[in-house]
Amino acid sequence: MTPSDKLSALREKMRNENIDAYIITMADPHISEYLPDRYKNIEWISNFTGSAGTLVITANFAGLWTDSRYFVQATDQLNDSGFQLVKLKTQGAAEYITWLSKDLSAGNTLAFDGKLTSISVAKQLISALKPKGINIRTNTDLIETIWTDRPSLPNGSAYLLDKNITGKSISEKIREVQEILSQRGASFHLISSLDDISWIFNIRGEDIKCNPVVLSFALFTLDGVQLFIDSKKLNSEAITELENAKISIHPYEEIENAIRYIPANASIFIDPKRNCYSYYALIPSSCNKIEDTNPSTFLKSIKNETELAHTRETMIRDGIALSRFFYWLEQNLGKITISEITVAEKLKEYRAEQKDFVGESFDTIAGYKEHGALPHYKATPDSNVNLELDGLLLIDSGGQYITGTTDITRVISLGNLTDDQKKDYTLVLKAMIEGSTTVFPVGTRGYQIDAITRKPLWDEYRNYGHGTGHGVGFFLNVHEGPHVFNASNTDIAIEPHTITSIEPGLYREGYYGIRIENLVASCLGKGSDFGQFMTFETLTMCYIETSIIDKELLEKRHINWLNQYHSEVFNKLSPFLNEDEKAWLASKTLSI
Amino acid sequence: MTPSDKLSALREKMRNENIDAYIITMADPHISEYLPDRYKNIEWISNFTGSAGTLVITANFAGLWTDSRYFVQATDQLNDSGFQLVKLKTQGAAEYITWLSKDLSAGNTLAFDGKLTSISVAKQLISALKPKGINIRTNTDLIETIWTDRPSLPNGSAYLLDKNITGKSISEKIREVQEILSQRGASFHLISSLDDISWIFNIRGEDIKCNPVVLSFALFTLDGVQLFIDSKKLNSEAITELENAKISIHPYEEIENAIRYIPANASIFIDPKRNCYSYYALIPSSCNKIEDTNPSTFLKSIKNETELAHTRETMIRDGIALSRFFYWLEQNLGKITISEITVAEKLKEYRAEQKDFVGESFDTIAGYKEHGALPHYKATPDSNVNLELDGLLLIDSGGQYITGTTDITRVISLGNLTDDQKKDYTLVLKAMIEGSTTVFPVGTRGYQIDAITRKPLWDEYRNYGHGTGHGVGFFLNVHEGPHVFNASNTDIAIEPHTITSIEPGLYREGYYGIRIENLVASCLGKGSDFGQFMTFETLTMCYIETSIIDKELLEKRHINWLNQYHSEVFNKLSPFLNEDEKAWLASKTLSI
Repeated sequence: MTPSDKLSALREKMRNENIDAYIITMADPHISEYLPDRYKNIEWISNFTGSAGTLVITANFAGLWTDSRYFVQATDQLNDSGFQLVKLKTQGAAEYITWLSKDLSAGNTLAFDGKLTSISVAKQLISALKPKGINIRTNTDLIETIWTDRPSLPNGSAYLLDKNITGKSISEKIREVQEILSQRGASFHLISSLDDISWIFNIRGEDIKCNPVVLSFALFTLDGVQLFIDSKKLNSEAITELENAKISIHPYEEIENAIRYIPANASIFIDPKRNCYSYYALIPSSCNKIEDTNPSTFLKSIKNETELAHTRETMIRDGIALSRFFYWLEQNLGKITISEITVAEKLKEYRAEQKDFVGESFDTIAGYKEHGALPHYKATPDSNVNLELDGLLLIDSGGQYITGTTDITRVISLGNLTDDQKKDYTLVLKAMIEGSTTVFPVGTRGYQIDAITRKPLWDEYRNYGHGTGHGVGFFLNVHEGPHVFNASNTDIAIEPHTITSIEPGLYREGYYGIRIENLVASCLGKGSDFGQFMTFETLTMCYIETSIIDKELLEKRHINWLNQYHSEVFNKLSPFLNEDEKAWLASKTLSI
Repeated sequence: MTPSDKLSALREKMRNENIDAYIITMADPHISEYLPDRYKNIEWISNFTGSAGTLVITANFAGLWTDSRYFVQATDQLNDSGFQLVKLKTQGAAEYITWLSKDLSAGNTLAFDGKLTSISVAKQLISALKPKGINIRTNTDLIETIWTDRPSLPNGSAYLLDKNITGKSISEKIREVQEILSQRGASFHLISSLDDISWIFNIRGEDIKCNPVVLSFALFTLDGVQLFIDSKKLNSEAITELENAKISIHPYEEIENAIRYIPANASIFIDPKRNCYSYYALIPSSCNKIEDTNPSTFLKSIKNETELAHTRETMIRDGIALSRFFYWLEQNLGKITISEITVAEKLKEYRAEQKDFVGESFDTIAGYKEHGALPHYKATPDSNVNLELDGLLLIDSGGQYITGTTDITRVISLGNLTDDQKKDYTLVLKAMIEGSTTVFPVGTRGYQIDAITRKPLWDEYRNYGHGTGHGVGFFLNVHEGPHVFNASNTDIAIEPHTITSIEPGLYREGYYGIRIENLVASCLGKGSDFGQFMTFETLTMCYIETSIIDKELLEKRHINWLNQYHSEVFNKLSPFLNEDEKAWLASKTLSI
């Protein structure tokens, strides 16, 4: 079936069922960012593979709403699909709702699959369209019957992590969640988000690429917990351990019944952004709903001492792999054929040599020259190019280790750089250092760190379209909340011991892209007459290319930071390198 | 009657009317920041004169909830009043509601005067307390019968401004508002906020100290406007001019009936933060309510070319007055007795010599030594001290001119400064320059400017408890929205041609306070490959004391900015000064 056959088939279904508009979201029943193949409806019907987007189909129109990160890619991929690109003004906003409210009239019917739509998006749809007399069907999966070879759910195995890895037992975590539920007056709590469940139950799995989570739901009461999971994924020791922690295990599919049987008048705590609408609609109507961010999302974001110690050690292992990779690249460039895809493969090989490596934390972005200007580029056989002794190469990659998650971006010069490229690179580096060295009072929000990081670029009339940083999990998702460093008005204070990326960038479409990214941990710093202050500890350990720096653009404090960082990188990594690698790293980390 | 007599009388009233808790707010039916004397209920019953606070009275407790700006002052003023100070954690938050919800039980009765309570605060109260079974009376004014000599409403005269002052006619402004109402689907629009009304109708008055507004309400339809005002305040030419603009004029008190007679099923646009609950409750229940910020609040914040040109010229006149004042102060210090009160009086005298001066835009804060550490200090005969040849003097003052509103803070040295004082002063200056020179992309929020301004202080573990800046009116209120430069997550983009203060500070309780404040206008700057950028134009024209600067703490760009600013100040002010003043200003504006 070609994409346009699929679209025709969908429209026929819509006519048969009297549906005037159908929405296809990018989500699963857990409102995940990375999806099991079964739920890749958008990719299947439109060819679009980006990580964010929504399709809206009517009799006369079919469109993909996505954000600026994907404009170039979407234009390319949607070709011949029958779908048009609609450019979002604000990343993540449900702007198609405004379009629908203009396109549809009273008496029309809109449908979507509520299992693949968050509570908050579904509520936005309902509150915008219902008053206009539009009928809304919230439980309509039209894809199932058209997609004849639709993949089944993944059945990767799952396992428990030891407390000496996680620093906290399952029982302790359950108690912490229950304490918050009790404070909030909740008697029940449904969790669908896979990283929250993985954190609470110290469980990891293989169901989703790059995210070591396992398909499951959890239903809390104040004195008990039910875990809904395919128990074949677990070995008998794991099942015993969970049962010893007083967790009752039920089949994955039974969550629907369990929700139906929540007692009347219970108070149920539910996160509207991380649960699907269909399950929300199953909650008995007499129940009181407390809608707020999952307590575990806050708890999980604050890393304990064990997690931080493991992460620091993991950063050294990741840094060794990166050093060996960059050394190999420098030795072989111009001698053997190396493409963007080779870069990704080779980097994975070096990471795989390291202890406790499980897999990549996301698909490596190796963007040579103009490909570097696409912040979410992934080389495909079609787009793949060979590296030459010229221009800039951007590599954004990360690893999942049992002992932590990494995410790092570096840019290196392959030769013949212009002064403009050096200026752009140096300003991005300056921004990264400004963010990393910020001293800020307790209570500071991510939007404040974002502004301070961007300032060196703004001063020179430059900017980047993505956020400055995202929370990072501990051997979990590479993107996690609740905090974020971007310009949005997210009202979450930066707590001590969170891990976040700082990754300013600069993109010249058609020419090159630059991004420099480290992970940092927030720490309590000095107190003063003006209150308690905080700082960041840089966790990532890998040299930053200095040959591209225009030193005149940096202030002394930036140069000092870089030299100190490089001395730390060399001291921590060199004991694990051979003599050639060590000499090479010494040259890469020379003071400027 | 002593305050404690008044409190006893109130409690007796409460007993008679079976009221268990009574709330006294700091507002009038226009939800103003500055109040007519008639509505100064909090000052009358508790002696507290701060600009923000709420009283809650029960049989066993009487408390004032206010924020950190007023902790010292409130402790002092509440003495013997029977009221206790309750310290707010977050400025402006209605934290007393949590207290009430714990203190009251089902069946208890809470009462307040809905005329003096905003819609949003009343709704918060109702939604927090009603589900707990607490009865809520929203129309109870217990003060009226106890306050026997309560002042009547002010009856200052009012007048219209010419279009060559305001740059836009009344009809144009009315049309702009009506256009937005039409876009939003509203058929009616109630405006209670006095600065919005003053802006739309190009009207000014004398009803409220420091704010040149007139008590009035406005009721818009899509093709007509009613203005509710005591017409005795206007001369016949003004009435004719308003009538020519197709405005129908009604007595002030008739607004209540007009609201009652809004037709059933009308769609009424109403700002929940700037209208009182009692009038909201009068709207026929069949009406659809669109609750959002007044359109005029946005329109008013964007100054037109005429307003900006007048403001620039007004800043020169204000700068001349300030220069003459500071010259006089320097000539006379140590020779004659000069107190904090003298400073305020003398400064007002010099301003009054200037063309178009109407009055102060707020009560002058002249804080010598430790008084400077109280950000909202106002010298009273009790607190007033004489200046000596020692320490720091902070002066925050502003003028209302027909041609614009000013607000400026300077700190000068009277002698014997320590290195710590110089460091503190220089860091505040550095912060002010950082904020003023920020280059930022279109769409930037005030919280981003706030962070960039604070950074030089954070770097040295210093901070200030107030916001970085507030919007300023054109011959209107010295505080106006919708934008603000502070750490709150206020999601309002900085539009071109707004006027805002940049006023970082630093306060050492018991020792001294520092604040340096200029007003700036936002302007479109350069565009680049990365979009359209904006900058600030500094409007305030007055030298900044350089003898206190520790030059080592500034970077070259800060020094350049200061020298350039001083050269501009001298060039603009000196033509209006006599030879002695001119020589003195030349010495004050020498390059450092």
